[in-house]
Amino acid sequence: MGQVAWKALFLSLFDYKTEKYVIAKNKKVGVLYRVVQLSILAYLVGWVFVVKKGYQDTDTSLQSSVITKLKGVAFTNTSELGERIWDVADYVIPPQGESVFFVMTNLIVTPNQRQATCAESASIPDALCDRDTDCLEGEAVVAGNGVKTGRCLKDRGSTRGTCEILAWCPVEKRSKPKKPLLGSAENFTVYIKNSIRFPKFKFSKMNVLATDNESYLKSCRYSQEHPYCPIFVLGNIVRWAGGDFQEMALQGGVIGIQIEWNCDLDKAPSECNPHYSFSRLDNKSAETSISSGYNFRFAKYYRDAEGVDYRTLIKAYGIRFDVMVNGKGAFFCDLVLIYLIKKSNFYRGKKYEEVK
Amino acid sequence: MGQVAWKALFLSLFDYKTEKYVIAKNKKVGVLYRVVQLSILAYLVGWVFVVKKGYQDTDTSLQSSVITKLKGVAFTNTSELGERIWDVADYVIPPQGESVFFVMTNLIVTPNQRQATCAESASIPDALCDRDTDCLEGEAVVAGNGVKTGRCLKDRGSTRGTCEILAWCPVEKRSKPKKPLLGSAENFTVYIKNSIRFPKFKFSKMNVLATDNESYLKSCRYSQEHPYCPIFVLGNIVRWAGGDFQEMALQGGVIGIQIEWNCDLDKAPSECNPHYSFSRLDNKSAETSISSGYNFRFAKYYRDAEGVDYRTLIKAYGIRFDVMVNGKGAFFCDLVLIYLIKKSNFYRGKKYEEVK
Amino acid sequence: MGQVAWKALFLSLFDYKTEKYVIAKNKKVGVLYRVVQLSILAYLVGWVFVVKKGYQDTDTSLQSSVITKLKGVAFTNTSELGERIWDVADYVIPPQGESVFFVMTNLIVTPNQRQATCAESASIPDALCDRDTDCLEGEAVVAGNGVKTGRCLKDRGSTRGTCEILAWCPVEKRSKPKKPLLGSAENFTVYIKNSIRFPKFKFSKMNVLATDNESYLKSCRYSQEHPYCPIFVLGNIVRWAGGDFQEMALQGGVIGIQIEWNCDLDKAPSECNPHYSFSRLDNKSAETSISSGYNFRFAKYYRDAEGVDYRTLIKAYGIRFDVMVNGKGAFFCDLVLIYLIKKSNFYRGKKYEEVK
Repeated sequence: MGQVAWKALFLSLFDYKTEKYVIAKNKKVGVLYRVVQLSILAYLVGWVFVVKKGYQDTDTSLQSSVITKLKGVAFTNTSELGERIWDVADYVIPPQGESVFFVMTNLIVTPNQRQATCAESASIPDALCDRDTDCLEGEAVVAGNGVKTGRCLKDRGSTRGTCEILAWCPVEKRSKPKKPLLGSAENFTVYIKNSIRFPKFKFSKMNVLATDNESYLKSCRYSQEHPYCPIFVLGNIVRWAGGDFQEMALQGGVIGIQIEWNCDLDKAPSECNPHYSFSRLDNKSAETSISSGYNFRFAKYYRDAEGVDYRTLIKAYGIRFDVMVNGKGAFFCDLVLIYLIKKSNFYRGKKYEEVK
Repeated sequence: MGQVAWKALFLSLFDYKTEKYVIAKNKKVGVLYRVVQLSILAYLVGWVFVVKKGYQDTDTSLQSSVITKLKGVAFTNTSELGERIWDVADYVIPPQGESVFFVMTNLIVTPNQRQATCAESASIPDALCDRDTDCLEGEAVVAGNGVKTGRCLKDRGSTRGTCEILAWCPVEKRSKPKKPLLGSAENFTVYIKNSIRFPKFKFSKMNVLATDNESYLKSCRYSQEHPYCPIFVLGNIVRWAGGDFQEMALQGGVIGIQIEWNCDLDKAPSECNPHYSFSRLDNKSAETSISSGYNFRFAKYYRDAEGVDYRTLIKAYGIRFDVMVNGKGAFFCDLVLIYLIKKSNFYRGKKYEEVK
Repeated sequence: MGQVAWKALFLSLFDYKTEKYVIAKNKKVGVLYRVVQLSILAYLVGWVFVVKKGYQDTDTSLQSSVITKLKGVAFTNTSELGERIWDVADYVIPPQGESVFFVMTNLIVTPNQRQATCAESASIPDALCDRDTDCLEGEAVVAGNGVKTGRCLKDRGSTRGTCEILAWCPVEKRSKPKKPLLGSAENFTVYIKNSIRFPKFKFSKMNVLATDNESYLKSCRYSQEHPYCPIFVLGNIVRWAGGDFQEMALQGGVIGIQIEWNCDLDKAPSECNPHYSFSRLDNKSAETSISSGYNFRFAKYYRDAEGVDYRTLIKAYGIRFDVMVNGKGAFFCDLVLIYLIKKSNFYRGKKYEEVK
């Protein structure tokens, strides 16, 4: 290209090109046009800004700390254990007061287990035997309690028996009480202390009433009327989650306690409140199903005067509570600019009118 | 401005202003123009709607509950402990069956520790001494087991020794077995029960086959063919995560078990399935590195007839399993409106043609 | 419509319709027009692309594993317990080295509790009585330690007393030491090993220096100069979180340790570094408030020669540390296409010029 052509091209860079418009002086079309324009503007202002609060910056990186503490004592009188009192150190596992805690409501105790040989439980299919060769020495019983010694133990006069095993003896008997041992746990209370913080906005709050009145926090119980009393009766939690306490206490189960903090920090801090919801997390299946309930085994280890270890095996049924906290804080910010750019189509419309 | 001018301005508000168009009756350009238009439309409909399912509302606030239960027995015969059976209550820590559980596969036992004075371990640099003044009384041994008493204990005839300390005595000897004690844990199984719920859509599901056939859930093992059998062999989990069980059992390690539920709830519930993936979470470093493996110490406390406490210290090596659940549910919704507004450029094009 | 009309309609589909433009050869307006165009382009390129890295794909599904290990020994000499050494197995709860751990710094010990009857603590309002009828038999003491037997126990000569209860006796005396028992825990260290992985990008990293120099990792302490030494002095953590160790050790509290990994994986892996921040998670309230501090009760169970259970109840005060890991990885990707489509207004402008 010649020098002239380059110059023309360069100059044309500073030409202002704009669409050519037709003005239709038709009132009907004009009104429709403005109505459409206004409704889109109303959508943006009304929905995106006012309802969805698009102008706010949100902080979803909530910092949360949960401390839980149970209170309550239960009395039981069984042929196996005699008269017994159960307090917090007995029935809460683990004891640390974290956001996940388990309340033991039923248990099968197998005391004085020692490393020895004994007959495997007859309820385990793999342990049934007719003769010694059915019990391969050194083989672990599938889903059982020990390792086979190679002998088949039979009751006098019977033709079938169970393999002898090396195990913690005697083995657990599979008989669950018909009624939960600690059914009175329904009246136990749990204090759930939750502090939250939105680090971006340096805003902190707690779910506990800021009061000097100590007796209030010692005697109150959470309800709709007392949203800042974080003391919950276990029976209420289970009922609010749609469960039946006595049935869950027998079989075990898992309850979720959600705490939500959705805070509009443009408003007063007193408008930033926790919202609780309760749900049953394990599937409430048929009673016969293998997958229903919640239980686990643990042992307390002792040593006798001869230095030999023995233990008490406990199969614990109970309710696990999972406290889950989530929330977001929102605050005014200069996202406005970003929205203006998105809506530039409208503003450009205005500009053009001025040019004309 | 005069009244007339105001009136003119007001009337002009209801003018309909539109761009003036040129119709080029050139077929080549016309076809190109439609092709471009169609491909953008195809992108929106095909990609955003059909592939990305932009018309669906998603719920990422998954409520999940995990219950784990191990099964398996191991037999060991060592000079220190004699013949011993290890069952679930012995090797699972903590026992509660939460989503994070640890299986002890190797251990160093230091029995009968009592509060007393003894020589610090010679493998701790800070405890080495030539004379009593090297052992400042009351000073804690750095990275050691106790507090110095001020004496330097030497073996007969040697010139170097270790400081005497007040500690749980005797102190642990640093000798790790060459082979994992509970290497047979490779055959143990874990039952991972996971219930999920999308609260927004009131949809619940479980990773366990809904069957009346209890024996299936007692004998099955998870595999691609049995995706609804939630019973996993520990050895398989480690292999799928790319690890070697016997090596991890010796040194310890951490395995992650991810369960993903990405559910299109417009389809049948049977299409909403869990997807498992397994990965090694700790860095598999060189064996010599200080940062490899996973172990911790805990103690069992006893009291003798005189009321004096003693304990058995256990340094446990093993594999920690972290079950992590995530997912999202998606459902049809009226986001359509929002997409229509975004695509209004195309629809406006049509409108204009009609006006003309 | 006739066949002709249909044909005309069909042909008109391939007409190319475009706006009619006016070229204003006004330099001032032209320059303004280009400046506006350039600044929008600069915004997109400069802000969205370069600063916000809009061209990168992000992975927020961080896989993280945290292993913690404490070191340190404390010596105490109290009238109750005598000379005693506290080591890791004594003061860390739970012992597993998970991401949440508790360091016991103060405790109230109630030894030799047995199931028996004794007087309830006088500090519990519900247990105060004037006569036996105030102590309804079988009723649990509200916020107390046991179940009333029906008797009111009074000291000789006094008119008020407390109900006799069936409980773990003797009950705990509510007297907290003025000084934390394990105040020297300030010098304990914790080794926090954090491995992360961005599964989408197959990128792994650890917060531990990859070095063969084992002695570095045994002697170093975390600081701004040593960001890859993951050994923290507890006293420093508390100070960085804005707390006072001795005060927290007395009352208990919760400290959050955030580890952030925001990694631009387009750069070298050595640019992907962990950032630590520390904050106090429990609300630092007035000392008198019921909601301040952190403590819990647990028990060690023993069995005497007669086979009767007894226990030592421990009310533990201390500091809970919550290690929280989050982060996101970002990587170049073909989101470019999506941005081009969004910016098509500009590119279309060019096309039009060519057409003209």
